[in-house]
Amino acid sequence: MKLYETYADEIAELIRQGVLQPGARLPSVRQAKQQRKLSASTVFEAYALLESRGMIHCRPRSGYYVQLRHGSQTPEPHTAAPAAESSPVAISDLVFEVLGSTRDERMVPLGSAFPSPKFFPLDKLAKALTPQMRRLAPAQLTGHLTAGDEQLRRLIALRYGTSGFRLEPSELVITNGAMEALNLSLQAITQPGDVVVLESPTFYAALQVLERLKLRAVEVATHPRTGVDLDSLAEVLRQHPVKACWFMPQFQNPLGSQMPVEAKQALVRLLTQHQVPLIEDDVYGELYYGHHRAPPAKAFDTEGLVLHCSSFSKSLAPGYRVGWVAAGRFAQQIQRIKLMASLATAIPSQLAIANYLETGGFDRHLRQMRLRLEDNASTALQCISRYFPTGSKVTRPQGGYFLWVELPPDLDALVVHRRASAAGISVAPGQLFSADQRFHHHLRLNFGFHDGSELATALRQLGALLVSP
Amino acid sequence: MKLYETYADEIAELIRQGVLQPGARLPSVRQAKQQRKLSASTVFEAYALLESRGMIHCRPRSGYYVQLRHGSQTPEPHTAAPAAESSPVAISDLVFEVLGSTRDERMVPLGSAFPSPKFFPLDKLAKALTPQMRRLAPAQLTGHLTAGDEQLRRLIALRYGTSGFRLEPSELVITNGAMEALNLSLQAITQPGDVVVLESPTFYAALQVLERLKLRAVEVATHPRTGVDLDSLAEVLRQHPVKACWFMPQFQNPLGSQMPVEAKQALVRLLTQHQVPLIEDDVYGELYYGHHRAPPAKAFDTEGLVLHCSSFSKSLAPGYRVGWVAAGRFAQQIQRIKLMASLATAIPSQLAIANYLETGGFDRHLRQMRLRLEDNASTALQCISRYFPTGSKVTRPQGGYFLWVELPPDLDALVVHRRASAAGISVAPGQLFSADQRFHHHLRLNFGFHDGSELATALRQLGALLVSP
Repeated sequence: MKLYETYADEIAELIRQGVLQPGARLPSVRQAKQQRKLSASTVFEAYALLESRGMIHCRPRSGYYVQLRHGSQTPEPHTAAPAAESSPVAISDLVFEVLGSTRDERMVPLGSAFPSPKFFPLDKLAKALTPQMRRLAPAQLTGHLTAGDEQLRRLIALRYGTSGFRLEPSELVITNGAMEALNLSLQAITQPGDVVVLESPTFYAALQVLERLKLRAVEVATHPRTGVDLDSLAEVLRQHPVKACWFMPQFQNPLGSQMPVEAKQALVRLLTQHQVPLIEDDVYGELYYGHHRAPPAKAFDTEGLVLHCSSFSKSLAPGYRVGWVAAGRFAQQIQRIKLMASLATAIPSQLAIANYLETGGFDRHLRQMRLRLEDNASTALQCISRYFPTGSKVTRPQGGYFLWVELPPDLDALVVHRRASAAGISVAPGQLFSADQRFHHHLRLNFGFHDGSELATALRQLGALLVSP
Repeated sequence: MKLYETYADEIAELIRQGVLQPGARLPSVRQAKQQRKLSASTVFEAYALLESRGMIHCRPRSGYYVQLRHGSQTPEPHTAAPAAESSPVAISDLVFEVLGSTRDERMVPLGSAFPSPKFFPLDKLAKALTPQMRRLAPAQLTGHLTAGDEQLRRLIALRYGTSGFRLEPSELVITNGAMEALNLSLQAITQPGDVVVLESPTFYAALQVLERLKLRAVEVATHPRTGVDLDSLAEVLRQHPVKACWFMPQFQNPLGSQMPVEAKQALVRLLTQHQVPLIEDDVYGELYYGHHRAPPAKAFDTEGLVLHCSSFSKSLAPGYRVGWVAAGRFAQQIQRIKLMASLATAIPSQLAIANYLETGGFDRHLRQMRLRLEDNASTALQCISRYFPTGSKVTRPQGGYFLWVELPPDLDALVVHRRASAAGISVAPGQLFSADQRFHHHLRLNFGFHDGSELATALRQLGALLVSP
């Protein structure tokens, strides 16, 4: 990395952390030269780079300023106050009804759960398939299948090294996407009727899985920027016979929140005191903004109580159905349930991904994708502040590709959903994100478009629908 | 097909049906000439072909005789009389303990559940992967995923046409192997505590799945050659609040039995009267001996009560994890559970198989595999009658690659398993094949070896262990 890039990264990190607030003036070139012993051209190049990324802008004869972007005029929503009781879940029918239309390719996919498939190196993955399969010894196809390909497990474990913790490949079970990993995790630690804690709002699929497994949900207050509120969680743990928590500490769906490292550590400590397992859903973990991958909650797990689930479906290879769970003390049990549920994960998918990871290119692909998503976040926030009705609120995602919008309370999200559908735009209405459908004037919007101008057009159209019903 | 091949096939069919009994003399060349208006050379060529397949042998100056093969000296076991009560299942620990060793590649795999992977056209499948994946539109990876690739569903449905019935592709859901199909089927129609009828003996994985889903099993008498005893089943249906039957009407694991077509029809009629769904596990359906695929029970399903499950894992592509369920009136429900359980089945596997099916070669591959398996069955029966202790009994499989051996009652199958393991041979002890472990002097033996002489050697070694403990 060149000197100006390093300096640009430092500034970007300060902006992300909020040390440099939106609208703040950056050090002048002279100040930077003096304080950091940098040449004027290095400073100029760094500022130009940040400007090209949309993070700062230049005011003629005044200097460089942090973009309003994440600090758009639209305020952030407050932390929700979920119901204190646990409840059975019955949301699936609504989810199927509402999201059926999302799967229509002709819809503008603001309601989709996936980023644009155009992000992914599908051609390279395809090329990685055949040579791998032809080198395969036939016995590998009927041998030690259930835990997954050893080389792939080793490569996945290695990637966690970059966020500073060591994962044992022997703890990993390769699954049919994260969805199976999460199902297996719940099945390993709960019985029908048990209470599971979810975030508020929470990803509707978590509600659907709880419904399917006849589990009771209790939702915990979740801050739109810093994630699960630990005081509220402590209260929930005192009041309910909790058997598991299912949280997304990194880039929560739908909030985009990220728990600070200390909070993750405190979370694991609190749950360990109560001997409550944490199912950590980390499917967006690779889609951080900035340069450093924060350690997941799993990194602080001393007693094997964290079942860390993730996949390649959002970061590399949708449709390949390769996920995993690092299941701590539950690893053997998970392997057994997996054997009975689906025997094993498809070998061609596993080998293609293992080959791709080994031959390189994944990090380059991710760097590009992260930059694009961060740019899109900025575009989306600007569009929302410009086109959405007064009184709207919106989150400032820390990673991933979701925004959570709180509309003025007189707008019903299901009505918005229907009107937007009729106009060819899908959205995910807030009602799907809580067992009691409390988020009735909220929307989850997907900004994971490959083309930022298409995103802007879609948000402008949606805004027009919202403003003049 | 040439004339002599047609004639050879006719004779082979008569042998299979038992019209020509083992040891019987075939028509002389002169008789055949007169009765069938065939040339002498056609008859000779036909007999030579049957001889090369091990179905008949020539006695010099006497004529051609049907091999003793399936009619080996070893008698067949009787129909088992299972317990009349339903019971919860607790067999999984034993299965894991016992079958752990089966997965060791260095073991001689008489205990394996898979045929030799050397049977499969793995290289052609691998070649079919890349071009398919490169032609894929990215949107296909995140679009209508759950039910599976449309072309693959169409091709699977088409194959059923050859056994004379029409399957609607819209009824099919592609799954992660048959194992997921069977799990989804049970989940769609049962609740924990419900009673499910299984065959006796039954495939241990069925017991494991019932255990996992907290279902109660009741076992029904099953004839080693003609499958489920319908009178016994009628009695079970009168006595128990049965919610589902899980049967393998074709080439049952472990018996190799096949229900005659009329029995399948009567089975579906009986279950329809009671409105009890049938989960039809048809994973060995393609591995019939002879030339005609009998229709599955699904063919007689008039009310959408049969959930027909199968896969390519035993016939074409182990490790690809592509199975399916034709779920009748439960199709939509299965799709929904699948969405929540694992979202979708890996696209690369699906497209590789679709491409292979389309470009042909599957039927040729299957013809070869079936002939080899039938030869192996003959070899195995001969070895057992020669090397196994007096008092042994053995089934006459109608398809597939399993034999069920009843040893003299003083031999404990778990002891046999341990001693065989120590000698480098795996076997599947009978205790695994019933909830009450009643088959304690039985073994399931896999004769799906690619090399018949390796099979013979393995059975000779096992026989020596059994005879002189």
